[in-house]
Amino acid sequence: MTVRSFHPPQRTLMGPGPSDVNPRILEAMSRLTIGHLDPAFVGMMDEVKGLLKYAFQTENELTMPVSAPGSAGMESCFVNLVEPGDKVIICQNGVFGGRMKENVERCGGTAVMVEDSWGDAVDPQKLEDALKANPDAKVVAFVHAETSTGAQSDAETLVEIAHQYDCLTIVDAVTSLAGTPLKVDEWKIDAIYSGTQKCLSCTPGLSPVSFSERALDKIRNRQTTVQSWFLDLNLVMGYWGGGGKRAYHHTAPVNALYGLHESLVILQDEGLENAWARHHKHHLALRAGLESMGLGFVVDEAHRLPQLNAITIPEGVDDAAVRTALLQDYSLEIGAGLGVMAGKVWRIGLMGHACNTRNVLFCLAALEDVLGRVGAKYERGVAVNAAEKVLAAA
Amino acid sequence: MTVRSFHPPQRTLMGPGPSDVNPRILEAMSRLTIGHLDPAFVGMMDEVKGLLKYAFQTENELTMPVSAPGSAGMESCFVNLVEPGDKVIICQNGVFGGRMKENVERCGGTAVMVEDSWGDAVDPQKLEDALKANPDAKVVAFVHAETSTGAQSDAETLVEIAHQYDCLTIVDAVTSLAGTPLKVDEWKIDAIYSGTQKCLSCTPGLSPVSFSERALDKIRNRQTTVQSWFLDLNLVMGYWGGGGKRAYHHTAPVNALYGLHESLVILQDEGLENAWARHHKHHLALRAGLESMGLGFVVDEAHRLPQLNAITIPEGVDDAAVRTALLQDYSLEIGAGLGVMAGKVWRIGLMGHACNTRNVLFCLAALEDVLGRVGAKYERGVAVNAAEKVLAAA
Repeated sequence: MTVRSFHPPQRTLMGPGPSDVNPRILEAMSRLTIGHLDPAFVGMMDEVKGLLKYAFQTENELTMPVSAPGSAGMESCFVNLVEPGDKVIICQNGVFGGRMKENVERCGGTAVMVEDSWGDAVDPQKLEDALKANPDAKVVAFVHAETSTGAQSDAETLVEIAHQYDCLTIVDAVTSLAGTPLKVDEWKIDAIYSGTQKCLSCTPGLSPVSFSERALDKIRNRQTTVQSWFLDLNLVMGYWGGGGKRAYHHTAPVNALYGLHESLVILQDEGLENAWARHHKHHLALRAGLESMGLGFVVDEAHRLPQLNAITIPEGVDDAAVRTALLQDYSLEIGAGLGVMAGKVWRIGLMGHACNTRNVLFCLAALEDVLGRVGAKYERGVAVNAAEKVLAAA
Repeated sequence: MTVRSFHPPQRTLMGPGPSDVNPRILEAMSRLTIGHLDPAFVGMMDEVKGLLKYAFQTENELTMPVSAPGSAGMESCFVNLVEPGDKVIICQNGVFGGRMKENVERCGGTAVMVEDSWGDAVDPQKLEDALKANPDAKVVAFVHAETSTGAQSDAETLVEIAHQYDCLTIVDAVTSLAGTPLKVDEWKIDAIYSGTQKCLSCTPGLSPVSFSERALDKIRNRQTTVQSWFLDLNLVMGYWGGGGKRAYHHTAPVNALYGLHESLVILQDEGLENAWARHHKHHLALRAGLESMGLGFVVDEAHRLPQLNAITIPEGVDDAAVRTALLQDYSLEIGAGLGVMAGKVWRIGLMGHACNTRNVLFCLAALEDVLGRVGAKYERGVAVNAAEKVLAAA
């Protein structure tokens, strides 16, 4: 059977990522490929590093994109910082804390789980109790912005507590980077990873990471070899390290990096604070619309992520039927629940380029229509009007 | 300092990869991003699997691209097939055999090295001797097409010998796939990995892999957990497995996969045998031109890869100066030597879309000019004429 070229449908991406990609980024990805050791490419790599430092608000020299998706970025933090026998405290309040546990155990470490309910922020007191009970712990890991629930935790406080007990910190910022305040140096985060397909609005496939000097000390003084050759930062540093000759490690994903570069230029031009404010403003508008329809948030107001709105599916409404209707009739993607929240919540993303007035109003109008078909009674336009009022007042 | 959008120079890529990318592929990569769980995307994933089966000449159900560069494809073969304590025989005849050793040791295995000179093919007799001396060996690994030297080994014979001693086989086909005959099922290869940036002429960043039923048996019956969460095929299979519901594992690099899909459609339309023949024909033309200039190949004729031509740098000629002149004056990239061959050889790639008449003639003309400047005496046009004669006769 002959396969033909693939032409994707035009979607509006308001799920948990990938989010709508800025056309400037798509155009950048289609620029001519050059060699990964070409002087012009090496110069671009240095710019990517500089722009990522800005996005992460850090001066960490080892700030770069891992050449693979966010889950490989997560793994690069764990395989480099955890040695066999190390005890790691993991604060779990959603799916991705569970993945951290998998990582620790595959590194030969012991994971001590500190559990909070899904939808809650991580409780600093529970972390402190766990550190008191486990004085031999070496690393604390948690998710800053839980993509599975839309809850934001107080990273600064959690890192401060971890440091009081002389632990390094690994922070998942996949969904927070560029969407909500994140300050790696001010908050003294030791190792952090993110993804390109969330609030950077780039295509999926790369994972920006950053490591503090303290983390690098640990890596340089490991007793054992890092179990992954591909993710061994001792080797990756020789390639992304900069400052002189680059040692060949792997072949960088050249065009994907063009895209990341362009997305970071866009972020630089908008300004980080403006990007955060844009996410906040549109979240408030979306919230007003959703609440006018009687839809409730999973996360309490104080800990809600503006860029990921998890809402409870109304009693009796068929999760999959609604998402299918949104996709088929409106070409609009919203996210399903993950793990224990499957079938119970929808996740509406307002990430990066997708976080704009058009999408907020379009999503509310589409939801009004589709939920109306399954029996819910909404006066047409109320949700859209509620959102517009918030936008006008902003 | 404000960073601006990056606009790469237009190069001709005749190094060891990335090779010139077909503009159809670049255009495909710039198509609109859709969700990685979108039904339209899932359908495209199935097509990619089918097209990769054709490229690898296999019916292996587990045939898919790893969401990371070739070195991660290599690692996915080793972490899944090698358990702590396993003995692995590695036939090394260049850089990449050494990287295999690194992989085995990081998996807790023991590597038994079978060495051949760089530039030689792997000697089947040496492999057989090693298997006799190591009856407890479980895996044999070798490179089909050594990117560092341009030597091709007899994969079919090596696999046959390995199977006689009840070993699984891991084969590096990064440079061979789509450039030179490769028949995974006929040759009974158990695990194989490749890259997208060589003879598929796609952008770098993905690693097509394929695993036989025999390899999957081993993976399903492992005593220990795979040390990498990201590369654990037990999990990846749930995502790429097809045939029904897909389990979320990681977010696929959507646009990079558009590019791979397009490159495989191009390969399907040309036909694998025609692609192999095109590589062979242009290699003969390039060879005629190079030999008319007195430039000699590193590899003997019987084992030369058409797509990677390693030639000895003439006595007294400055390696870096020549490559810099080719890049600056002709925007032409050829490859430097790697490892022990650094400074001693150039590697001229004729890979995929870059393997065409224009590039052969252009490269020879540029070399004539640049080598002429450093004192070599060539009658202008002789090399180009020699190549043209071969092309006319083909």
